[in-house]
This record gives sequence, structure tokens and C-alpha cells, in this order.
Amino acid sequence: MRMVDLIEKKRDGHVLTKEEIHFIIEGYTNKIIPDYQMSSMLMAIYFNGMNDLEATELTLAMLNSGETINLDVIEGIKVDKHSTGGVGDKTTLVLGPLVASCNAKVAKLSGRGLGHTGGTLDKLESIPGLSIDIEIEDFINQVNDIGIAVAGQTANLTPADKLLYALRDVTGTVPSIPLIASSIMSKKLASGSDVIVLDVKIGEGAFMKTLEDAKALSHLMVKIGTNVGKKVVAFITDMGEPLGYAIGNKLEVVEAINSLKGEGPSDLHKLVVEISAYMVYKANITKTLEEAKLLVEEKITNKEAYEKQMEFIKRQGGVLPDLEDFINVKEIIEVKAQESGYVKQIHALQIGLAAMKLGAGRATKEDIIDPDVGILLNKKVGDQVEKGETLAYLYNNLENIDSIIKETLESFVITKEVVEKKNIIFDIIT
Amino acid sequence: MRMVDLIEKKRDGHVLTKEEIHFIIEGYTNKIIPDYQMSSMLMAIYFNGMNDLEATELTLAMLNSGETINLDVIEGIKVDKHSTGGVGDKTTLVLGPLVASCNAKVAKLSGRGLGHTGGTLDKLESIPGLSIDIEIEDFINQVNDIGIAVAGQTANLTPADKLLYALRDVTGTVPSIPLIASSIMSKKLASGSDVIVLDVKIGEGAFMKTLEDAKALSHLMVKIGTNVGKKVVAFITDMGEPLGYAIGNKLEVVEAINSLKGEGPSDLHKLVVEISAYMVYKANITKTLEEAKLLVEEKITNKEAYEKQMEFIKRQGGVLPDLEDFINVKEIIEVKAQESGYVKQIHALQIGLAAMKLGAGRATKEDIIDPDVGILLNKKVGDQVEKGETLAYLYNNLENIDSIIKETLESFVITKEVVEKKNIIFDIIT
Repeated sequence: MRMVDLIEKKRDGHVLTKEEIHFIIEGYTNKIIPDYQMSSMLMAIYFNGMNDLEATELTLAMLNSGETINLDVIEGIKVDKHSTGGVGDKTTLVLGPLVASCNAKVAKLSGRGLGHTGGTLDKLESIPGLSIDIEIEDFINQVNDIGIAVAGQTANLTPADKLLYALRDVTGTVPSIPLIASSIMSKKLASGSDVIVLDVKIGEGAFMKTLEDAKALSHLMVKIGTNVGKKVVAFITDMGEPLGYAIGNKLEVVEAINSLKGEGPSDLHKLVVEISAYMVYKANITKTLEEAKLLVEEKITNKEAYEKQMEFIKRQGGVLPDLEDFINVKEIIEVKAQESGYVKQIHALQIGLAAMKLGAGRATKEDIIDPDVGILLNKKVGDQVEKGETLAYLYNNLENIDSIIKETLESFVITKEVVEKKNIIFDIIT
Repeated sequence: MRMVDLIEKKRDGHVLTKEEIHFIIEGYTNKIIPDYQMSSMLMAIYFNGMNDLEATELTLAMLNSGETINLDVIEGIKVDKHSTGGVGDKTTLVLGPLVASCNAKVAKLSGRGLGHTGGTLDKLESIPGLSIDIEIEDFINQVNDIGIAVAGQTANLTPADKLLYALRDVTGTVPSIPLIASSIMSKKLASGSDVIVLDVKIGEGAFMKTLEDAKALSHLMVKIGTNVGKKVVAFITDMGEPLGYAIGNKLEVVEAINSLKGEGPSDLHKLVVEISAYMVYKANITKTLEEAKLLVEEKITNKEAYEKQMEFIKRQGGVLPDLEDFINVKEIIEVKAQESGYVKQIHALQIGLAAMKLGAGRATKEDIIDPDVGILLNKKVGDQVEKGETLAYLYNNLENIDSIIKETLESFVITKEVVEKKNIIFDIIT
């Protein structure tokens, strides 16, 4: 088998076989196939796509390139959730304890944030004492004991995906649906859960820009999961504005805690309940999806989910002070509306970058995060606003942030017409 | 400027600017842009193409990457001809002396053959004593003295093209019309002639497989030439069967000599007269194309072209024996028809490879050619043939060539129906 023949085959619109796809990924991982052949193959895939069987084999080939986590010793059905990344996305912090309190098993390996999107690990580490460096044995014991553990990924999972992603990043081949789908799914499969719920975000603050692309990606990921015997559900959700009100690590932890007390923002609550219900239902804990929704709501109302969250934080070493003393910044700056009207849009990408510049996120992998800073919205899309009213609070420790204030203000689009609130969930693909 | 942005620009179907194209080619030649970015760019160009201005800038950028030959000290208009390569293509050996005898200046840098197509240099070197290693000064003097010189390319012309071609060869990006056009045109422009006639061959023995592709390539090359102030004509000609009867170095030299005596095959004669007439006309030697045709025919009839050919061979050191003593092989094997009928097809690729296996061509660059061997057709497409009649003669010096005999026989498609002879020239693009 010669790589150049396989490039030409894909270039000419033909379907690659299982053997050919494994030959490509093994050869590339073992440095037998050079970068320059792989990158032209990736561009050919960008243009001609892959069918779901090809994407499944690509996923399996990347899965086979490294270690996998065996969760078999955990009793019960293991559930996992993956978000394609958004601004203010603290969903995992809420639904993890929530589904664990419903008796599903959450063994979650999570990542750090880069650019305008935050990472679950960074948010958790903003809690004093909390550690995400857990040995695999302790990780499994913790899930068996309390139903939930969240750790950083240390095992050499899917090295082929890491190599491919680095190459795609510099060769204009990132936005290819089969490449994105197999990248996400290989990592999720390597993490070993039985039920995988995907949160595919769309909008300018997200990876997918259109509903059409998000649907295609979702269908393909569900198909790949089904092909390998997993239960997969994909939510397509709005990232036109940030999720909830909080952007920044401690701010988001507080919002997540409030949410589990039943005092969170309505968009976050709705999203968490819907996703959690699917996780619980797919984990065979309830007979119907409706029952799962009732169970999830009950766990919030009776505070069991909140208690599970506290148990989880404590178990991983976290010592949470009173929430009033949790966040400490030099100043809180109010960004005020310059005109009256209705909030038509909050540019998620722009405000996410503003929060990053305050120190809440990383521009490069080496940057150090300030856990206390960030942006707390005071208005969401659809809200009425008077001139002079506060649109957002900047939790700040820096000097000279005039440009960040300006960018925050400019993230808000105010219109004279009444604006209806959007439904946060656009579609659910099962 | 970042290469990844330019890859994405081309990937998304936008037009690259002059500055961007020169940035890419300079960066790649200077090894600042890595192979893996260039190959994904090439694949993006394969899919999204280039307009004629982009292709012109690509040609100029490749031209600028190395040395160029300055032919200004040669008096008169310099004419050049390029064939995209075919089986039995000895056109240069015939039309070079022919147009020189009409007083056009032929300063030709030529190449060696690889695979199933032969190279002009290999054919010339089959003449005892003839050297194609000529210093540039002698080369120019020779053109000024006798109107024609053919030499091997020693200067560092278009190094960017050489790098790109090597990369395209292993990344499935060879068959892209703007990439082919700029590769050919950059080399032709570097060689310094004023008039360039291109012979774009189509058919299974040729690079272009369809008339549509050949037309697109021809139009683009003419446009590039015009954009930079050259006179360019492209012929689209048949490579469905070999050109003439001879395939193999000395066999082709003999056929070329006979052709200049007016005793050559009709397809070769027609092609040579038409191309030569355009070269003479575009060199302003005649006022009309019709006059050019008459002049060319006259130079064949009055043997001036033949005499020019002898002068050219002698000037480059060649000592031509009597043609009867020129070719020496161990045996001449007759390949005979197994059925009666009409020759419908002679697979040019297959019979070209058979000749290569006899030793007339190179499978790899390191192979050594046997100048005496080859295949002499006895029948051409449209000819009637009786069972047992000779289809072709194999001039052979090898042992055990049963498989080559079989392949030669199988190159011929015999049918019961009468077959019309095709016109060798499909189109002329000016």
C-alpha cells in the first residue's frame, strides 16, 4: 500500500477501506508517513469528506494509537459528556454532581481552556485545595464511592489525534466535519464511558458556525458511537451569547453552585436538566425520559445534587470558603449601557476574549490564569435595559483596562425593538 | 503574512494576490514554508484552481526562483517548442532543423526521458559522437552560426518548480491544470525564447487524458505567455497511438531523418509541418500562416531542411554512419497478427512501456538506455491487417522477452469493421 495512491483515491472522491485508514493512521503515528503526505490527505478529506464508516474507522484507528481507560471495575453505567466549547460553559460543574446524585457514574477526564473558551479543570482548580491530579486507581475508587470524579488526562490517550490536530492547525484543515467528529469521538471512546452526551455549540463563540454544520457533525458523531456500541446523544445548543451570567473561573464555580441550589440562570438550568435527563435515561436509571427529567429536578429541589457537589469538591481536596469571601479582586468595574432598549445580542467570542484579557483565560498554553477575575453579566439577550444601567461587572486585578471595558461594552448590541429570548436547545440528535 | 491564512484563503475559493503567491514560492524555495503546508496548499489549488492571473504570478514566481537564459545576443526571433510528452515523439528532431532552415532561431534546452515517453537528448545521444553538453557561450554562437542548437539543461533554472514537482509527485497533486501550466511555462520562459509552440498531447499515452482538460491547459498556457509578452500557440494532438512508426532512440532518429527527406510517416509529417509553420509565421518570417506552410514544405522538398539537420548533427560532434549500419541488435522479432481485420487502436502507454522494457527507456532515473533497441510498428490505426501479417518489429538485445512480445501484441486492438484514420491535430489554441 502506498500513501500517494490513497491520497489520490480520496482526492478522486472514492471511499477508503478499513485497512487503508488503519494503514494511514498507524503509518503517520509511527512516522513512516511524512507530514507532507498527511496534510494533502487531510485537505483531500476536507474537500471530499468521509462517509460514516470511514469516520468510524478513523476514530477506531486513532483510539488504537494509544492507551485507553478501562472503567469496567466501576459498577453501574458510566456516563460522560463533552462540550465543543463555549463562553461561560460551566455545564460539567453542574451536571456532573447532578447525574451522580441520580446514581449514574461520572468518571470524567477533562481539559484546560485555551483562547476565549474556559476549561473545566481550570474552573475546579480555582477552588482552594482542589486537585485534579488523581492516580487512576484512586480515580476509580472515588467513582465507586461517591459516583463522580473529575481528573486531568495523564495517560497517553489517542496520540494520533494529538499529532493530527497539531498538523491540521497549521494546514488549514481544522474545519472538516469527519475530522472533528473522529477527533472528539476517539477521545471520548478512549475515556471508557458507556453513555456519551455531546453538547455541540453553535454561534460565533463556538467552533461550529451554522446549524447545518452542527447537525452534520452531530449526526456523524452519534453514528460513530452507535457503530461501536455506545449510546450517544448530541445536543445542538446556542452559543450566540455566553451561557449563564458568569465568565471566569471562580465566578463560574459560584454560578454552578447556585445552579445546583436551584438558584441559577434559567438558560443554564434548562440545558443542565435536559442533558442530565438524557444521561440518566440512557444509563437505564429511569424507564422514560420524562421520569428522568422529574428525577433530575427533584435532586435539585431536595438539595441532594448540591450535597453531592460539596462531597465531590471535598473528596478532591477542595476547601470552599463562604461564597462571599471566595472571590477577591482589586476592583469591580461596572460597564453601563449608553442607550436604552433591548439586548439583541451579546457577542460571545468578543466578550470571551475580553474575559481572557482580564486574566480569566489563556491566550497561549503557557499563560497563567487569575482565578478571581472575569466578567459577570447583568443583562442577557432579550432583557430590557435603561441608559446608565449596568450591563456587566468586570472583576479586575489589572491596571489600565480601558480597552477591555470598551470591548465588553461593544459586545452588547442594543436595539429599540423588543427582542424575544431564544430557546437554548436547537436540536437533539439521538 | 502567514502561510496557514493563505491555505485557508485558497481552500475557501478566494483569489491569491501577486504578493501572496510570491511570498509562498519564495518562502518554500528558501525552506521557510515547510513541505506539509505547501502540500495542503497544492491540494487546495487542485480543488479550487487558479485564475489566469494567479497562474501567471505563480509562473513568474517560479521563474524568479532561479537563473534564466538570456538569448538577447542571438540575432532574430528565437522559437521554442515543448511537448507534454508522448510515445514515439521525435517531433523536435524534425522541426528543429526545419524551422532553422526557414531562418528562425532554435536555441533549445531539452530533457531526458522517463517511463514510457522518450526524451530528445537520449535520441540525439544515440548518434555516435554527438554531445549535448555545450557551454552557454558555444550554444549561443552555434545558434548564431547555423540557426539551431540543442543542449542539456545545466543552469539552475526554476528550482522552485523542481521542488514543487517532487512534492506534487508524492502528494497526489500532479494533475492540476494551473500547476502543470505554470510548471511548463516557467521552464519555457526561463529558456528565453520569444515564440513558444506547445504540443499538448492527449490520450492514454499522454499526461492529459481528455480533450476538455487539454483545452483548459492549452488556453491557460497561452494566456500566461500572452500576459508576459510572449507569442504562444498550443497544439492539441493525438497520443492515442504512437507518433509515426518508430519507438526507440536510433529508430526514431532514422525516422526523423527520413521525415526531413520527405519520406516520413504521414502523421509525423502533418504534425511537423503544421507546428513548424506556426513557428515560422510567429517569428515574422512570413506574412501569413499559409505562406509559412508553403515555405516549410518547400524546405523539405528542396532538402534544405535535411541538409540543416546534417549540419546540426555534425556541429554537435555527431558522426552518422550509413543508416543501414546505424542500428545493431541481436535480433529483430516480428510480432504477428493473430486475426484479420482493421487496427482499431494501438495502446500507446502499453507499447511505450514494452519499448522501455526492451531497454529503449528508463523505469528509474538511474537506468541506462540501449540506443539500438525499440519497436518499429508495421501497422498504424486504420490499417487493414491479415492474420499472420507483421504488426511490429521488436529490435532486441535481451534474453527471454516473451512477456514483452505478448504486451506488444496486446497493445493492438483488431476489429472486423473498417476503421477511419484520425486527424492527428485536434485543435490549435492561439
